[in-house]
Amino acid sequence: MKKINGGVTAPQGFKAAGIHCGIRKNKTKKDLALILSEYPATAAAVYTQNLVKGAPLTVTKNNLQNGTARAMICNSGNANTCNANGIEIAEKMCALVAEYCAIAADDVIVASTGVIGEPLDITPIAEGLPKLAAELSYDGEPAAEAIMTTDTVKKEIAVEFELDGKLCKIGGIAKGSGMIHPNMATMLVFLTTDAAISAEMLQKAISEDVKDTFNMISVDGDTSTNDMLSIMANGQCGNAEIVAEGEAFDTFKKALNLVTDDLCRKIAADGEGATKLLECEVHGAATKDDARKIAKAVVCSSLFKSAMFGADANWGRALCAIGYSGANVDINKVDLDFASAAGSIALCRDGAGVPFSEEEAKKILSEKEINIIIKLGDGEASAIARGCDLTYKYVKINGDYRS
Amino acid sequence: MKKINGGVTAPQGFKAAGIHCGIRKNKTKKDLALILSEYPATAAAVYTQNLVKGAPLTVTKNNLQNGTARAMICNSGNANTCNANGIEIAEKMCALVAEYCAIAADDVIVASTGVIGEPLDITPIAEGLPKLAAELSYDGEPAAEAIMTTDTVKKEIAVEFELDGKLCKIGGIAKGSGMIHPNMATMLVFLTTDAAISAEMLQKAISEDVKDTFNMISVDGDTSTNDMLSIMANGQCGNAEIVAEGEAFDTFKKALNLVTDDLCRKIAADGEGATKLLECEVHGAATKDDARKIAKAVVCSSLFKSAMFGADANWGRALCAIGYSGANVDINKVDLDFASAAGSIALCRDGAGVPFSEEEAKKILSEKEINIIIKLGDGEASAIARGCDLTYKYVKINGDYRS
Repeated sequence: MKKINGGVTAPQGFKAAGIHCGIRKNKTKKDLALILSEYPATAAAVYTQNLVKGAPLTVTKNNLQNGTARAMICNSGNANTCNANGIEIAEKMCALVAEYCAIAADDVIVASTGVIGEPLDITPIAEGLPKLAAELSYDGEPAAEAIMTTDTVKKEIAVEFELDGKLCKIGGIAKGSGMIHPNMATMLVFLTTDAAISAEMLQKAISEDVKDTFNMISVDGDTSTNDMLSIMANGQCGNAEIVAEGEAFDTFKKALNLVTDDLCRKIAADGEGATKLLECEVHGAATKDDARKIAKAVVCSSLFKSAMFGADANWGRALCAIGYSGANVDINKVDLDFASAAGSIALCRDGAGVPFSEEEAKKILSEKEINIIIKLGDGEASAIARGCDLTYKYVKINGDYRS
Repeated sequence: MKKINGGVTAPQGFKAAGIHCGIRKNKTKKDLALILSEYPATAAAVYTQNLVKGAPLTVTKNNLQNGTARAMICNSGNANTCNANGIEIAEKMCALVAEYCAIAADDVIVASTGVIGEPLDITPIAEGLPKLAAELSYDGEPAAEAIMTTDTVKKEIAVEFELDGKLCKIGGIAKGSGMIHPNMATMLVFLTTDAAISAEMLQKAISEDVKDTFNMISVDGDTSTNDMLSIMANGQCGNAEIVAEGEAFDTFKKALNLVTDDLCRKIAADGEGATKLLECEVHGAATKDDARKIAKAVVCSSLFKSAMFGADANWGRALCAIGYSGANVDINKVDLDFASAAGSIALCRDGAGVPFSEEEAKKILSEKEINIIIKLGDGEASAIARGCDLTYKYVKINGDYRS
């Protein structure tokens, strides 16, 4: 099992394309992406738990009822959410893909990302679709670019692994930089695989995976209205279809986790305005839920995130976050260390501060990836949450998003 | 019932003082405050719900078990929290006040605010106490100054009202600028009154009041370890002691709310780095709890706060926050308006955007106080939450707090 080059087109039988069709004003920014499976595929998705749900999610959910899909279409620049005609527009997007790719309209996964509450004009999409379909190729990069909004880097990854002696692949692209505090899925993640797996087992695999991956990252504590992770599996690698739990399912889940873990790190590190990736590991919690709550509270604290931006070893703010996390924890047994490529340092033992070198701490916190290691004395459960620092640039980006 | 000049010394029989004793390095910053009731007083307090509780809170809680207090002492510059000897230091602070003010040590309310996890040296406090006691006067301002940390303005208020034909007063001071997301009380609020009211009814009055006042403000979503609101009532105005619910209790609560409401606005407007006060009013919610959740989610959203900093009418972010607030709400019935001294503007009706003038919106959002008015179609409950915008300066202040 290893990471390989490529993204959604790494698995056999998947093509993709990305173009600028005119939703975004800046002509150098692609704004429409398409991924097509050349063969029938099972499919599954997880969605935001925000009560305000983007219209595309409603349409996708409906289309995935039969557990199959052939294409994913996604525009950036407009979320198609809180609009009177949102459903109608999302359905038109599916119909256009069906027309130009010669597939059924209910085999289309549709997604949108961008500003909420502004009507999405179908015209540029309708005019762009012929070109988009014509440009479908085994190069997944343009699609990875077309789903970006405030992202500064495209996020793609592929892994290969074996099932029944057959070489299988899972590929993925993701976007997400602000409004990132997923609850069920993340901003937008599109995965493809040439493994054969039933829709039911595919749903089970991603539903279990997101609990420890996308649901454990946060850029700003805002759960988006349009979060969705979707996956298509077209079986082209030739393995015996996975239809139940067992060794093959475990292998598939492990490969899936290699992909999602990588995309999570990329999303957190590319958080709006971020200069640093924060990873908070919690060990020794009474329950998994307690471990998750604590890890997430620390990477979500604006005060702690600001301190990390300033490479300031203000560990008391992490203790404060543990205290209000809602987790069941004995504060008098908390140990806390910071670690990075520059080394590691102990700051707190048994809930009280220990003397440390400010100079050493500064050096450790000046790296690009910071680990916050919390050891509790309450049990055996652990969890990791990922986030980023809070910077001037985050405020700048979001003080002026629509302009 | 009206607001009058002054703070904690406005009610009869209260003296106060504030000095620089040497906890803070900057000698121009006062760091030790004392409030003394010249007469026996009933007392009550509410505390943070953070599991990590400052040592002074534990000591205060213990001292208030008998429902009486005569003095409040508070230092800034160090929170005396997550230290091995915290309780011992807080008890010494009470003993020093007892010694120099000739009262019982268990009649002292003690509080600390500042950095978490650094041992608090008792020496400057012990050396400063004689001076602090000698400077006690009917001027409440030095005490209001001495509890400030990153606050840019001192926060004090007094009101007068009648009980049994007697002129009563309630006065208060507060501090709080960052780590403000109170859960039970706020950062630090010290109230005094010359009304006669039993400790039990005093506790009831403040416990009910904070639900709609201090528990509904947020600067950064971080619930402090040292939040406390405390009040002393010395009965010097001569009313018949309030020992049960009824007209006098209602009048007292109304006067109390005038004080707390004012201090809440002052704290939210003086949030770290803030340029604007945000007030989110929610009407038509199914329950009070739903209204509170929604109002608070909106003023807590980093994305929405950043948009307000940029005077950007990105109302979709408020809708997004409503959706993840956890409140039970019919999104298709949501109306949203922005209002300020410059006018008001409709942005959303029945959950969908309506056309609006960007120029007009910019003008309205460029004021210092912004109202976000949300009307739901779910019932009759309403709530107000207060916060502030998220600015470069917040990040700057907190990237480098300890230095």
